[in-house]
Amino acid sequence: MPHAAPSPRTRVRRLHDKAAYDRAMINAILDAMPVAHVGHVVDGVPVVTPTLQWREGDRVYWHGSSASRMQKRAAREQVCLTVTLTDGMVLARSGFEHSVNYRSVMVFGQAEVVADAAKTAHLRAMMDQMFPGRWDQLRPITAQEVKATRILSLPLTEASAKISAGPPTDPPEDCAWPVWAGVIPIRLIVGEPVPAPDLAPDLPVPDHAKGYSIG
Amino acid sequence: MPHAAPSPRTRVRRLHDKAAYDRAMINAILDAMPVAHVGHVVDGVPVVTPTLQWREGDRVYWHGSSASRMQKRAAREQVCLTVTLTDGMVLARSGFEHSVNYRSVMVFGQAEVVADAAKTAHLRAMMDQMFPGRWDQLRPITAQEVKATRILSLPLTEASAKISAGPPTDPPEDCAWPVWAGVIPIRLIVGEPVPAPDLAPDLPVPDHAKGYSIG
Repeated sequence: MPHAAPSPRTRVRRLHDKAAYDRAMINAILDAMPVAHVGHVVDGVPVVTPTLQWREGDRVYWHGSSASRMQKRAAREQVCLTVTLTDGMVLARSGFEHSVNYRSVMVFGQAEVVADAAKTAHLRAMMDQMFPGRWDQLRPITAQEVKATRILSLPLTEASAKISAGPPTDPPEDCAWPVWAGVIPIRLIVGEPVPAPDLAPDLPVPDHAKGYSIG
Repeated sequence: MPHAAPSPRTRVRRLHDKAAYDRAMINAILDAMPVAHVGHVVDGVPVVTPTLQWREGDRVYWHGSSASRMQKRAAREQVCLTVTLTDGMVLARSGFEHSVNYRSVMVFGQAEVVADAAKTAHLRAMMDQMFPGRWDQLRPITAQEVKATRILSLPLTEASAKISAGPPTDPPEDCAWPVWAGVIPIRLIVGEPVPAPDLAPDLPVPDHAKGYSIG
């Protein structure tokens, strides 16, 4: 796999064979997992917050309240947005070779604030990616709601993926050790949609909810 | 719910009704989800790395290579360890009220390095929590492997949980809007263990692998 890290801090330093800077792979991971962990520095201390992310072309977006401390800080400072999918526990013959199969993306950069006039289009894009067609069915967004929402984004110029997959890789001298070895797969699944208690009975589950997938 | 934040930075600033400093709840979330995201500050820039965590009593632990940049830095600096379980997508009548159901824990503090002499006991504790009885079946750990492993820990004194659950909470004036509303549940599941390709055929899947659970 070619290693052309787009910047020194993006270069994956450990387990180089697991690193990838391929944009198709980065996009696939971001698109599969909407929950990200965003890191900010607040008074010199790191703060890691779970938040929804979505991708539009060459950028990743996330949003929150305009009143949020994290959102305000992120708009002027360097952030790190990390997305991780856990695919399995890898059980080897030694404790040392135990590991986790996963797909992960890290994006570094200075977050940019989306201008007021562009916010609605991005919120619509977020909704349409998760639930196609739903935006047009919703009670329309108000000017006050747009104002209360801050949207941040990062370019994918400093992004890297890290993927670990496959069976345990015990050294040859350990392979005959009499203990079970293999992978316990883990994945996210989507359950049956649960209607709101106050939902009118004539509103069936729409295709955009039935068809939701993650992971 | 009583709000007695153990420190100013631990106080949950947004959506206070979702905050909890109850140790039983914090423990339950940490114990349900071994994959954490740890935030460090490297040259003023946040770096968020996925890693396995485990809890022993009043502390949370994670480990990595002694050669790792993150591990070296974490040993002297403030870190933030965040664990998140995604429980569902909440579809409301307006885009603004859409949200995610989740359980999350954040732990702040200065990471402490576990001394060499204590490392093996902690690695055993990690293994025994995930796969009871497995440690004693493994090829025994070597002095070199212990040396190559760095274990870090944080006390749970500055920990908080944040939980969002239940149906959408549209304001009364939106509830009659003719769009489906409700929750799409999401959860982690464990698949059938997959034996390593080079596993001897007389080694059946042990109970500690069959019984593995997450989430």
